[in-house]
Amino acid sequence: MNGVRKRLSPDLRRAQLLDIGSKLFADRPYDEVWIEEVADLAGVSRGLMYHYFASKRDFFAEIMRVESARILDTTAPDTSLPVADQVAAGLDAYIRYTVEHEHGVRAINRGAMLGDAEIQAILSDELEVQQQRILAALPAEIREDEITRTALRGWVSFVRAVCMDWLDRRSISEDEVKQLCLRALDGLLRT
Amino acid sequence: MNGVRKRLSPDLRRAQLLDIGSKLFADRPYDEVWIEEVADLAGVSRGLMYHYFASKRDFFAEIMRVESARILDTTAPDTSLPVADQVAAGLDAYIRYTVEHEHGVRAINRGAMLGDAEIQAILSDELEVQQQRILAALPAEIREDEITRTALRGWVSFVRAVCMDWLDRRSISEDEVKQLCLRALDGLLRT
Repeated sequence: MNGVRKRLSPDLRRAQLLDIGSKLFADRPYDEVWIEEVADLAGVSRGLMYHYFASKRDFFAEIMRVESARILDTTAPDTSLPVADQVAAGLDAYIRYTVEHEHGVRAINRGAMLGDAEIQAILSDELEVQQQRILAALPAEIREDEITRTALRGWVSFVRAVCMDWLDRRSISEDEVKQLCLRALDGLLRT
Repeated sequence: MNGVRKRLSPDLRRAQLLDIGSKLFADRPYDEVWIEEVADLAGVSRGLMYHYFASKRDFFAEIMRVESARILDTTAPDTSLPVADQVAAGLDAYIRYTVEHEHGVRAINRGAMLGDAEIQAILSDELEVQQQRILAALPAEIREDEITRTALRGWVSFVRAVCMDWLDRRSISEDEVKQLCLRALDGLLRT
């Protein structure tokens, strides 16, 4: 607690609190983050913190919403590139993100938050966008095929599972994770 | 409620309650199953029901434990067969199970129960066994490769995601689901 309270507009204050929370949730398990600590780090009262976010869960959900928008932004494809390059670049960005937000990624992929309907909706919306981007880059006759569409949704889950597994074990290299995911997609799209 | 209460030994009574619960949870969303209804269907008092299971969640967890043992039994491989046949047979059994226990499978793969540490442990133990079975059927030099091991864990998640997706949409046939999963595995194991 630094004791010095800067006056910030509500929007900036809110953004500051989310930013602090995002860092804490990235570095530590969900259960080891206290909302009081966020208030202290921001130099605001706990009452003000609760004025912005009704509960730790609401705070976490809002961070997930912001992070989800950010990850979609970071992984946005350069549609002038061939599809393979677009996918590879998106995958790179996703793997980087999981490394830099290890605990936050864990919190949404397992643990108590996983059963939360709102968190699940944020996550499935994000997966849907990722899948639509790959579909958009594919030739129309492949894009309209229901088996391909099912395969792509499965692949996005595969990537998440492999990245989670890799965070836990680190038994292969980051590049091997990437190559494995690309190989899986290649196998699925080849008919 | 039929009003007729048969005398059963505690073990048989417990098995009967689990059996009734399993059917209800297979057919209906978790939130639409009431533990009182289970008691009524079994012709026992609600007090007795709570004597066996402390809460709906505990009841559900116990059903999952029983079901998980059952599914591992149903999908047990015939180790005299080639690995591809073992995997195909296991996959068949798994897909059959998801069809016959649609809502139960949904309950453990999404929804509030997904955030429950005990349910997750049951599920990840089951996935671990499934993965070990495939590993055991592979040649030693492939089995010991960390990339293969990571790929297999990812594949098991892929199968789950594809089956869940298929339950929701039914946009492809059961056989297409199976072929897609086998193709994905084939692509992953080919080096």
